[in-house]
Amino acid sequence: MIKGIFAPIPTPFKNGEIDYSSLKANLEKWAKTPLSGVVVLGSNGEFAYLSHQEKVELVAFVRKNLPADKKVIAGTGCETTAETIILSNKVAEVGADAVLILTPYYYKGAMKDAALKAHFLAVADAVKLPVMLYNMPGNSGINMNSGLVVELAKHPNIVGVKDSSGNIVQIAEICAGTTNEEFSVFAGSGSFLLPAFAVGAVGGTLAVANIMPETCVALVDAFQAGDLALAKELQHKLLAPNKAVTAQFGIGGLKAALEMLGYNGGEVRKPMLPASEEAKVAIKKILETAGVI
Amino acid sequence: MIKGIFAPIPTPFKNGEIDYSSLKANLEKWAKTPLSGVVVLGSNGEFAYLSHQEKVELVAFVRKNLPADKKVIAGTGCETTAETIILSNKVAEVGADAVLILTPYYYKGAMKDAALKAHFLAVADAVKLPVMLYNMPGNSGINMNSGLVVELAKHPNIVGVKDSSGNIVQIAEICAGTTNEEFSVFAGSGSFLLPAFAVGAVGGTLAVANIMPETCVALVDAFQAGDLALAKELQHKLLAPNKAVTAQFGIGGLKAALEMLGYNGGEVRKPMLPASEEAKVAIKKILETAGVI
Amino acid sequence: MIKGIFAPIPTPFKNGEIDYSSLKANLEKWAKTPLSGVVVLGSNGEFAYLSHQEKVELVAFVRKNLPADKKVIAGTGCETTAETIILSNKVAEVGADAVLILTPYYYKGAMKDAALKAHFLAVADAVKLPVMLYNMPGNSGINMNSGLVVELAKHPNIVGVKDSSGNIVQIAEICAGTTNEEFSVFAGSGSFLLPAFAVGAVGGTLAVANIMPETCVALVDAFQAGDLALAKELQHKLLAPNKAVTAQFGIGGLKAALEMLGYNGGEVRKPMLPASEEAKVAIKKILETAGVI
Amino acid sequence: MIKGIFAPIPTPFKNGEIDYSSLKANLEKWAKTPLSGVVVLGSNGEFAYLSHQEKVELVAFVRKNLPADKKVIAGTGCETTAETIILSNKVAEVGADAVLILTPYYYKGAMKDAALKAHFLAVADAVKLPVMLYNMPGNSGINMNSGLVVELAKHPNIVGVKDSSGNIVQIAEICAGTTNEEFSVFAGSGSFLLPAFAVGAVGGTLAVANIMPETCVALVDAFQAGDLALAKELQHKLLAPNKAVTAQFGIGGLKAALEMLGYNGGEVRKPMLPASEEAKVAIKKILETAGVI
Repeated sequence: MIKGIFAPIPTPFKNGEIDYSSLKANLEKWAKTPLSGVVVLGSNGEFAYLSHQEKVELVAFVRKNLPADKKVIAGTGCETTAETIILSNKVAEVGADAVLILTPYYYKGAMKDAALKAHFLAVADAVKLPVMLYNMPGNSGINMNSGLVVELAKHPNIVGVKDSSGNIVQIAEICAGTTNEEFSVFAGSGSFLLPAFAVGAVGGTLAVANIMPETCVALVDAFQAGDLALAKELQHKLLAPNKAVTAQFGIGGLKAALEMLGYNGGEVRKPMLPASEEAKVAIKKILETAGVI
Repeated sequence: MIKGIFAPIPTPFKNGEIDYSSLKANLEKWAKTPLSGVVVLGSNGEFAYLSHQEKVELVAFVRKNLPADKKVIAGTGCETTAETIILSNKVAEVGADAVLILTPYYYKGAMKDAALKAHFLAVADAVKLPVMLYNMPGNSGINMNSGLVVELAKHPNIVGVKDSSGNIVQIAEICAGTTNEEFSVFAGSGSFLLPAFAVGAVGGTLAVANIMPETCVALVDAFQAGDLALAKELQHKLLAPNKAVTAQFGIGGLKAALEMLGYNGGEVRKPMLPASEEAKVAIKKILETAGVI
Repeated sequence: MIKGIFAPIPTPFKNGEIDYSSLKANLEKWAKTPLSGVVVLGSNGEFAYLSHQEKVELVAFVRKNLPADKKVIAGTGCETTAETIILSNKVAEVGADAVLILTPYYYKGAMKDAALKAHFLAVADAVKLPVMLYNMPGNSGINMNSGLVVELAKHPNIVGVKDSSGNIVQIAEICAGTTNEEFSVFAGSGSFLLPAFAVGAVGGTLAVANIMPETCVALVDAFQAGDLALAKELQHKLLAPNKAVTAQFGIGGLKAALEMLGYNGGEVRKPMLPASEEAKVAIKKILETAGVI
Repeated sequence: MIKGIFAPIPTPFKNGEIDYSSLKANLEKWAKTPLSGVVVLGSNGEFAYLSHQEKVELVAFVRKNLPADKKVIAGTGCETTAETIILSNKVAEVGADAVLILTPYYYKGAMKDAALKAHFLAVADAVKLPVMLYNMPGNSGINMNSGLVVELAKHPNIVGVKDSSGNIVQIAEICAGTTNEEFSVFAGSGSFLLPAFAVGAVGGTLAVANIMPETCVALVDAFQAGDLALAKELQHKLLAPNKAVTAQFGIGGLKAALEMLGYNGGEVRKPMLPASEEAKVAIKKILETAGVI
């Protein structure tokens, strides 16, 4: 059963290309943290800005440059069922431990439950790795409701869900509906990590885990030790930095924060814009207040 | 400091008028539960369907017919600042313990932070009872963001907030921003009671507390005793009944559920429609599954 | 059949009370314009901030102080069916020509088609004046779909709809579905007056008609004369002033604009805030650009 | 200046691959209609389900199989600025007349005006074909506001916009703001074709133009001849068929409707689902009512 805290790592670019040496240095640093692993090709990894080929190479590189005790989950959701299966099996060949499959999203009107169900079942049948569902309505504009997730959870190769909706009731409903399954519910943001664990989540894939892995893991440890006062304190501490590297300043903000912490942020790909100077000042202040720098 | 579980009681009608004898019988039953008190004139009380005069009479009646150890919070938010103050002070005279003030909401474009701030400060200055803010975007279409609530919390007569948004991050931000205040954060729905407590809430005003008061209080007790497994189990148990008496079947559904449990539901006022026969069958099944009947 | 351009007049306040002498002066000015009439107690009239008694007095006053050839439509929609009927019949007694009935809106989840249909049919049956439906989702958070409106249009006492949704397809569907009825479709904003007429509307109730009645009427005249180039030019001209007195600066902005044009704007009621000084500067510039001042 | 009615043609698939012989037969039929041209790789063309290579081949094929007097506009918007430029210049080489560039859309939070502006200016600078902006918030979740479009319209190589938002005020604002430019505003749906022309549009790219090209062109002709009654009647006639092949039954519905009219619909690509049998019955009835079959 997949559990624990994963960092959805950003992809550093240099002159528009993936900057592998910067990435390698980052991986060495993350390897020393208590993270359970990383997600490559997540939203924070600018997966939507990478070609099919770049995606496979990137997963291979990360797997090769990360110790075996750190899991590598690869985001391989594509718009079509066919391409999703092909890409997923390619990352299987280069060593990924699991795939994280985002809902197809451009044709919103067509992505009703029946279409999503058929898609995920076909993917789960054909892919040689454990499949985690990825619900990210903030970017995709599509929400997988709890009923659908609970139904999909019955498939033996669908082993979990990352829910980034922020809808804690939906997360609770999924947990309540899968108590009898081997099914891992992951919080998709550090802003609701503790509440998600309270209702039954067992892991998190959190942008903020890139910059504050120890705090994220300490929160989970405190929760599991029954130290709710500490868990709550750590949750409060995560709020502002989490927001800074997600909704507030985006991936540019996450990369800027990484630079402040000795990681390599690198460029974003256009049309995304880098963090402005004002944003950097704000991020720095937030990280200082949180005691991260 | 206000804390604990409150039931936002519905108003039973008979031939279009408030049915006080039915209400009295209900109050006698709720008095025997471990509830901390009730909210009169909340959304579930059809406050929007009651005249100014009916509101005052209703609060007086409830206060008179409930033991002194049960608190009575009255929902007195009106569209104008002036009427809100007048109504609030009238319910003070008839014995309410606190007022719950909904954001004015018809002129959505005009209800920006500055207007809301001026409104709530004026109300808090002029009203002789402790003021709780009431954030109910699902009905009002207006959300009070955490920054505004944290700022308003500094006023000595603004003693808490009932947040029904379901936005657990917002609730966490409010808790984090008011740790140094005497400020009570209440969950506004039983569907996220445990997650809200996990991030710092100290109470709840929950439709489902009308029909499952013991379970709601037991959840809080388990949480405070550090029994997270039990708290989680109770939270899971609350999900379906809570949905049945809120989003799924509305106030008509809540009244039907009360009837099934020996309370008096009574009519709803038009244009609201009562629960259909199909809805009643569904509600009955949900209550049976939850072990309530 | 009701048609033409109506101004939804604002209510001037002074020290918090309705300022009837200011209103009288305004009515004298509007009487000299080519407007077909006025709407009292519309959204722009701050109806939500007026008591039942103030509403009746206001309609009586407007009717008495406006020439008989100008129609007076009164906004009498309330949250309950019962109060809507009572208020509507009271304004009938004081001389209103028709009533404009907003959808009840607080209990959004309960206001499904069946409830709205029963409400409007009961109102249309019981009210002694012609009934216009009022669809204002921007404020109410409730949209009446075209199917429902077409169905209600069959009732002999439901004579039209004011649609402020801005959804031109919905307006077209209503027009297409009521070509065989005596049913008047009104644009609810000057920003889409011409497009609404193009698909079949025959009138408009427009905030901007308070300040630019001649332009609004000239647009309709041009359209009906087949002068599409002029109609388009006038529509373009209305865009910025219309926005200034609605979404951009609200009722405070409308009142400020009226003051600039020799009308009496008066106060807004709290919690609404008056136009700021910056807003007034912007409004003045917009009116100058449009050639209104 | 680009004007007139364009059909955003669907891509027929067979066993998952592009079915070129079916497409060829369709093109021969559309060639005989009064359409000004076609859009390849629009939303209806399942562009999001096609590889980079398939896209180029498809444009080349369409250009080769359509008479020179029919324009071919290619949808070449990609998530990154770089790929958008590469693809656009490839379709230029195979004969497209213009490109239609959708807003990048996955990273919604990052696609603020500054990012979109930089993206479109970079694309317009680097691409060898005239650029039309493509605003499709229903699928992309991103709306280009009128201010941004008006600003971009100043670039000499940005020659128009297809606005599928259905926001007629926004369309009017764009028309009003570009009266002094050589800038073509296109309605993005047949449901608001006439209203868009009324406020200044000069063309349309309409799903319904695939199945009712003559009616769409007749509407424009009637409008331009000043026959508003006929134009309105035709607009009313388009409403139901337009809805059937867009929001109501999607691309599967469009393909089913084409089959009913003697065109080749072909498969949709998974995860999209084909029209159900119930949907086909409903579509048939709608087309019969509209007199199309």
